[in-house]
Amino acid sequence: VGIEGPSMKTEVPGPRSRELLKDLTELQNTEAVQFFCNYEESQGNYLVDVDGNRMLDLYTQIASIPIGYNHPALIKVLQNPHNVSTFVNRPALGCLPPESFPQNLNETLLSVAPKGLRQVQTMACGSCANENAFKAACIWYRNKERGTTEPTKEELESCMINQNPGSPDLTILSFMGGFHGRTFGCLATTHSKAIHKLDIPTFDWPMAPFPKLKYPLDEFEKENTQEENRCLEEVEDLIVKYRKRGKNVAAIIVEPIQSEGGDNHASNEFFRKLRDISKKHGTAFVCDEVQTGGGGTGKFWAHEHWGLDDPADIVTFSKKLLSGGYFYKDVLRPIGGYRIFNTWLGDPSKNLLLSEVLKVIRAENLIDNVNRSGKILLNGLLDLQARYPHVLSKTRGKGTFCSVDAPDEASRNKLVLKMRNKGVVLGGCGDKSIRLRPALVFQEHHAHLFLNLFNDILADF
Amino acid sequence: VGIEGPSMKTEVPGPRSRELLKDLTELQNTEAVQFFCNYEESQGNYLVDVDGNRMLDLYTQIASIPIGYNHPALIKVLQNPHNVSTFVNRPALGCLPPESFPQNLNETLLSVAPKGLRQVQTMACGSCANENAFKAACIWYRNKERGTTEPTKEELESCMINQNPGSPDLTILSFMGGFHGRTFGCLATTHSKAIHKLDIPTFDWPMAPFPKLKYPLDEFEKENTQEENRCLEEVEDLIVKYRKRGKNVAAIIVEPIQSEGGDNHASNEFFRKLRDISKKHGTAFVCDEVQTGGGGTGKFWAHEHWGLDDPADIVTFSKKLLSGGYFYKDVLRPIGGYRIFNTWLGDPSKNLLLSEVLKVIRAENLIDNVNRSGKILLNGLLDLQARYPHVLSKTRGKGTFCSVDAPDEASRNKLVLKMRNKGVVLGGCGDKSIRLRPALVFQEHHAHLFLNLFNDILADF
Ligand code: FES
Repeated sequence: VGIEGPSMKTEVPGPRSRELLKDLTELQNTEAVQFFCNYEESQGNYLVDVDGNRMLDLYTQIASIPIGYNHPALIKVLQNPHNVSTFVNRPALGCLPPESFPQNLNETLLSVAPKGLRQVQTMACGSCANENAFKAACIWYRNKERGTTEPTKEELESCMINQNPGSPDLTILSFMGGFHGRTFGCLATTHSKAIHKLDIPTFDWPMAPFPKLKYPLDEFEKENTQEENRCLEEVEDLIVKYRKRGKNVAAIIVEPIQSEGGDNHASNEFFRKLRDISKKHGTAFVCDEVQTGGGGTGKFWAHEHWGLDDPADIVTFSKKLLSGGYFYKDVLRPIGGYRIFNTWLGDPSKNLLLSEVLKVIRAENLIDNVNRSGKILLNGLLDLQARYPHVLSKTRGKGTFCSVDAPDEASRNKLVLKMRNKGVVLGGCGDKSIRLRPALVFQEHHAHLFLNLFNDILADF
Repeated sequence: VGIEGPSMKTEVPGPRSRELLKDLTELQNTEAVQFFCNYEESQGNYLVDVDGNRMLDLYTQIASIPIGYNHPALIKVLQNPHNVSTFVNRPALGCLPPESFPQNLNETLLSVAPKGLRQVQTMACGSCANENAFKAACIWYRNKERGTTEPTKEELESCMINQNPGSPDLTILSFMGGFHGRTFGCLATTHSKAIHKLDIPTFDWPMAPFPKLKYPLDEFEKENTQEENRCLEEVEDLIVKYRKRGKNVAAIIVEPIQSEGGDNHASNEFFRKLRDISKKHGTAFVCDEVQTGGGGTGKFWAHEHWGLDDPADIVTFSKKLLSGGYFYKDVLRPIGGYRIFNTWLGDPSKNLLLSEVLKVIRAENLIDNVNRSGKILLNGLLDLQARYPHVLSKTRGKGTFCSVDAPDEASRNKLVLKMRNKGVVLGGCGDKSIRLRPALVFQEHHAHLFLNLFNDILADF
């Protein structure tokens, strides 16, 4: 309402940001801090910093803001006196849920449940979502192996001292370039950047190559299919090889688009075949939609693009859904209490906000909006790539979940900084990619605005 | 205000709770659910359920409610229009912190920083607090080993495929009976109940026996010192043994009172010696105050009881501090961005509430209150134990952080249920212990009330 575009007063970070950075650096490592924000003044697609700069935000707090800053529907949630109690009394959800919990789940998360999944476990972030998805898969897998849900005395005793058979040598198969979080379980399946993993002990779990496709995808179908088949063969080989070593694969985890790892896409056919492999080998198929879920790819879940009736056994989420969790097949529901558990198991106050987010997505047809704006973004980027082929390459995307490569890391970082000083917040991913992650309220005119400013920068680059 | 005591209308769970349980059981495993709550009607030390039963709460959402339900100071936070933006715009704190972040940290977490620690890393729960504490310890340890913070090319490459030397065989030493969370890293150091660990792959990390003391502690000083020395010797032996196997111990993690594991205490001398061992062997000393932190033991941090000038290298927290994190020594601060990182890194809206919690703790002298109420609880339990020696044993506690043992698990559970139907919510821990975890606003008259009701139950038991 009334916001016409970016408005820049200083370079970013400006003097106030630099001052605050000094203060914060007294208390912790701040090397990832970009600038300080004035969230009260931020609005819709515009992020305002502490020096009064207003920037069009295509990064949205690492893809985690669903409907823009200070959306009136969310402000109303806070103004409703009936909601106060949910914010000030955080329950131990697994023991003492609030009265509204079952109905809220039905009206929010279950209303967007992925195909074939009717069970949901709430968690607080993407990492605990994935960690607990792995645990659920391992429990299920061991029950299959032992043919009963009743553990032996030996299992109960050995697990207490981290030994077989109670602590089995199960593994989770992941892909090179994948990112699934940074806690120890997640980190063992994350292979996007060395700096995430360096010096941290980990598991000997199998990792398969993820297809390195040539873009545009439709021009290189044959080569890409070959590359995908090579990776799928490797997946099967790894499952067999690890099984022979007594390290059965309990689950495969994959992102529909590898995001932190560089926005690496694969064909729907690839995922359909991967799903088949998981079934053939009796391993759970975990689809990590922490970054892709919530509408940015032009469908609520990115895996809907695959066109499968039975796309996954577990789908994990967080970010745009405001807190974490996972949907799962009935067979993956653990028997017995306290197997999948922690103190808070999520946060009903986030669920209250999610309820409004989902209403806004429906009322304002935001998925359609994403598809419209996404088309402009993608075509615009292809156009810029044609005009500046020495700078841009590999334009790709679904919905507004688009990206493009710079020649190298240094020039990618330079482009991101130049754009920021022009009033556009972008994110990097992989070695040299720029990723666009606008909110679902990012409209066609915002796309044009971004493309114009990007063109200005590229013309001088 | 005006609440005179428990008020029971039905047995618990009542008909409405049972109805809701049916609904929720459609969507997830609910075997740990006790009953459903009406948080809006709950007040101070009283938890109200959906059947209108009002119960004195000595469990407080697994020890996570600091100043009771619906405290007016917290409600005011929600009513202040200036705070709305903090609740509706959750930032990626590590990249784009809000303007108020440095000052808020100084006024909240840093104002209660444990002795010797001036750095703080916010996280969202106790599990990510501990997971990242382990990571910080491992990074620090490897830098010591390599003599530089610059990794080799081989390290950078090998960590990407989960191999040595980039993914080193470092270990975290923990104690039998300890509980540090349920994500994969935490779970490898948790040894309280088999059901937490069964079927989940884990690490070969050393675990030492935790002293099994005789209570009351002052009557068995000699035996207890012997037992503690035995455990401390085992700690040193394990560090040496694992080092010989190429699995250096990067950190020792310990709770000041093992909570989930059965409220197992050890002497201040034990912890002082353990601290010395960690220094002697160059391993980080991580004190897990997730359950003990925040005042319940009669000091803000339980480790303050040890009387050390340099009690720990890292102190982790969550629960009563409303979100997670850890304080750490300057030397444990990682060099380089994105080593300790995730999307949200906590939640400033929880920090806003914490700010009020700390003000209330100071204004109402709640730590003094804990000591007063705690004395009544402990003496009252000792008295009941003397009167019902066939039922109660091993009364122990610090502040209101008290517990007592039943003869076995079945009678413990029966006592907890009987008390619930009398209007008192209690928790179990270990095999047969009852733990008291009231909020900091639990007063002397609440202690008397609890003791009277407990006496009634015990007289009939
Ligand atoms: S691990 Fe998810 S909130 Fe802590």
